[in-house]
Amino acid sequence: MPVDSVTLSKKPHVLIVGGGFAGLQCAKQLAEAEVNITLMDRHNYHLFQPLLYQVATAALSPADIAAPIRRILRKQQNVRVVMETLLGADLEARVANFSSGDVSYDYLILATGVTHSYFGRDDWAPLAPGLKTVDDALEIRRRILLAYEAAEWEADTAARQADLTFIVVGGGPTGVELAGALKEIAAQTVPKDFRNINTTTAKVVLVEAADRLLGALPEKLGMRALQDLQQMGVEVRLNSLVTDIQSGGLTIGTEFLTAENIIWAAGVRGSDIAENLGVELDQQGRVVVAADLSIAGFPDTYVIGDLAHVTGKDSGQQIPGVAQAAIQMGEYVAKEICRKLREETKNKPFIYTDRGSMATIGRNRAVATIAGHQFTGFFAWLIWGVVHIFPLVNFRRKLTVLFAWVWSYFSRSKNVRLITGESKIKVKKPFGIVSQEDDNSP
Amino acid sequence: MPVDSVTLSKKPHVLIVGGGFAGLQCAKQLAEAEVNITLMDRHNYHLFQPLLYQVATAALSPADIAAPIRRILRKQQNVRVVMETLLGADLEARVANFSSGDVSYDYLILATGVTHSYFGRDDWAPLAPGLKTVDDALEIRRRILLAYEAAEWEADTAARQADLTFIVVGGGPTGVELAGALKEIAAQTVPKDFRNINTTTAKVVLVEAADRLLGALPEKLGMRALQDLQQMGVEVRLNSLVTDIQSGGLTIGTEFLTAENIIWAAGVRGSDIAENLGVELDQQGRVVVAADLSIAGFPDTYVIGDLAHVTGKDSGQQIPGVAQAAIQMGEYVAKEICRKLREETKNKPFIYTDRGSMATIGRNRAVATIAGHQFTGFFAWLIWGVVHIFPLVNFRRKLTVLFAWVWSYFSRSKNVRLITGESKIKVKKPFGIVSQEDDNSP
Repeated sequence: MPVDSVTLSKKPHVLIVGGGFAGLQCAKQLAEAEVNITLMDRHNYHLFQPLLYQVATAALSPADIAAPIRRILRKQQNVRVVMETLLGADLEARVANFSSGDVSYDYLILATGVTHSYFGRDDWAPLAPGLKTVDDALEIRRRILLAYEAAEWEADTAARQADLTFIVVGGGPTGVELAGALKEIAAQTVPKDFRNINTTTAKVVLVEAADRLLGALPEKLGMRALQDLQQMGVEVRLNSLVTDIQSGGLTIGTEFLTAENIIWAAGVRGSDIAENLGVELDQQGRVVVAADLSIAGFPDTYVIGDLAHVTGKDSGQQIPGVAQAAIQMGEYVAKEICRKLREETKNKPFIYTDRGSMATIGRNRAVATIAGHQFTGFFAWLIWGVVHIFPLVNFRRKLTVLFAWVWSYFSRSKNVRLITGESKIKVKKPFGIVSQEDDNSP
Repeated sequence: MPVDSVTLSKKPHVLIVGGGFAGLQCAKQLAEAEVNITLMDRHNYHLFQPLLYQVATAALSPADIAAPIRRILRKQQNVRVVMETLLGADLEARVANFSSGDVSYDYLILATGVTHSYFGRDDWAPLAPGLKTVDDALEIRRRILLAYEAAEWEADTAARQADLTFIVVGGGPTGVELAGALKEIAAQTVPKDFRNINTTTAKVVLVEAADRLLGALPEKLGMRALQDLQQMGVEVRLNSLVTDIQSGGLTIGTEFLTAENIIWAAGVRGSDIAENLGVELDQQGRVVVAADLSIAGFPDTYVIGDLAHVTGKDSGQQIPGVAQAAIQMGEYVAKEICRKLREETKNKPFIYTDRGSMATIGRNRAVATIAGHQFTGFFAWLIWGVVHIFPLVNFRRKLTVLFAWVWSYFSRSKNVRLITGESKIKVKKPFGIVSQEDDNSP
């Protein structure tokens, strides 16, 4: 039995599950509190998720946007970090279940986020991977790079075009960013690397079910993103609901689009653990919480970050699934716990302060809304850069990412084009390597 | 059928299999030759193998030491790059076999290198992974980091010590570098990250069958490496032949050493393709070649790099399996082919010019022999740094690696401590998470 501060102490035990923006912020905010904190995550790192698409598109390495949670919290003595996966919890008894045993707690904070939703069609998952984890990003990177390798040696013209067709499903920020980056790779990064294919002919299609892009941002910015993408050569299909995905393409209504590469950025749902708790969920499988982010009937059980569906007095407020909202929720709940420890009764509901949103589209192109002002083009892109470099967890990572960007800005290069690991799918057809002796072409 | 330069042209076709130091150098050296080159590799990247142990020990990201072969050769118009695995070849008919079809050639250059050898005990492979590829390095990194995670939550003292015991088998440069880096992680990098374990008590054991370390270097330097490692706290066991490896430890004669983490750096053998060629192999499965690096009876089939066992007039010369020798062989064969194209008959045998060897042991510690002079300590470490940064493939990577090093030198930190992917082994035992209510410790 490990002799540690938590098991020895009689201080209240705060169990935080999930080391994303919400959970990490909550733990940090409790640094001075007279509690023992356990922060659990199924990974050993905190991920700067807004830049994950850059790992998927070979611009950054995983280590550029992720840092061990232990390292981030190494100086905070009232927290222990565990790499574990929550299986369930008895909210009444205040006991959480893990494969390695049970843990009792005084406060439970669920911050496990969301995962991809295929709207009931989980069979689409292997055909159209989503982008939520580092391993997802590496899988997508692998597929993108293998597609060019396959095309280079594909003898059949139609099959070669299918290898060079990339469809991104979902026109939110992730979809827009992925589509833009995919087009930049094809048009700027790899053309000179291949001998048999003209990579600038690679087709990037962005499919969105609604009638506009970036639904969470003002309409004008959605329009601008559409224009920018079209100017870059991305084919954008609005009002297009994907009705089926098969190996080799997808169906929109009666139309079949041929593509060897499909990426899913369309929907999210609450992480699986939510279903095991026996509490109220919304249609996306997120946990319905009161205005103070606690679960009805369990005032010391909180849900924060993307997993929370906030109701109550301010239920009119739309809280987007972004880092900023997660951070604010983490802070709020930490303060709530401190308030309870001081036995104060006044209880203010959580109110989300929208400091702005943004999406990048490509080199010199982004859209942003900040404090009611809207920005587009190069200036928005600069703002985006600043906002995404500065929060990065430590000094070194900041400089590395900045350096990678400045470099890739001037060189138009992507430096992380490595195919590592085994792909979950195998390249389906053999490369069309031609024996010289069999060759009868002119 | 792809219409490309090779299939259209009547120029001689040079097929190079393997994009390591030897194959890449050979392709580059043929840039001006009137030939068509196909460079094949099972990966899409060239790997700077001497720094691979730094990926395994979380100091560098894969992209810091690897670059797409296509990118390196993008400006060389007489080469095409294919990501493929050689299955076999009919040396008489000059046809190479791949899963995707056959390729005919005029010159074949085999540069597929070596892989780990477990001396007939391939069942040891999952228990003691070796370090040859990027995926190997990521697997070892995963195991090292998971070992600390497991130890942190292990209740049993003996089991915890086993989690914190790392055995490296093999006292060559890779083994020495790994052992030194493992000790640095334990003593300098992670101590503050954990709450329940004192990572400075982690045990690193280096096991070597011979009576000295770094057998390929002068004896004095092997002695110095031994002293340096011992000073750092590594337990070095010379004259220790590993007779068995099981889950949880290994056997040396009658002694069983308990350890949850074993890394294999003891032996190499020629890559599998060598066996399929029906040619003479040495005891390590490397291809026996004549003094001009060609296979007896097949003057236009060459073997270069680690896979070659050179015989002939200068058979007395020991050619070590290092980057330098591979590069020299690649250059030599490229010149040989040019000579044949010019139909000159004079044929000088390959002679290896030893420009020196070195191994790093840790911060400020290395051993090197250069042009007959021996260096140790800080100065050798500086030389090692310079020698290993400057050949790195492009400018950006050079700066990134330099930056990562300078940073980790001053901060004593390792920034790539991410556990990604699924480990080939599962962590065997559940973490000893203690319920607070069950806890009766004082």
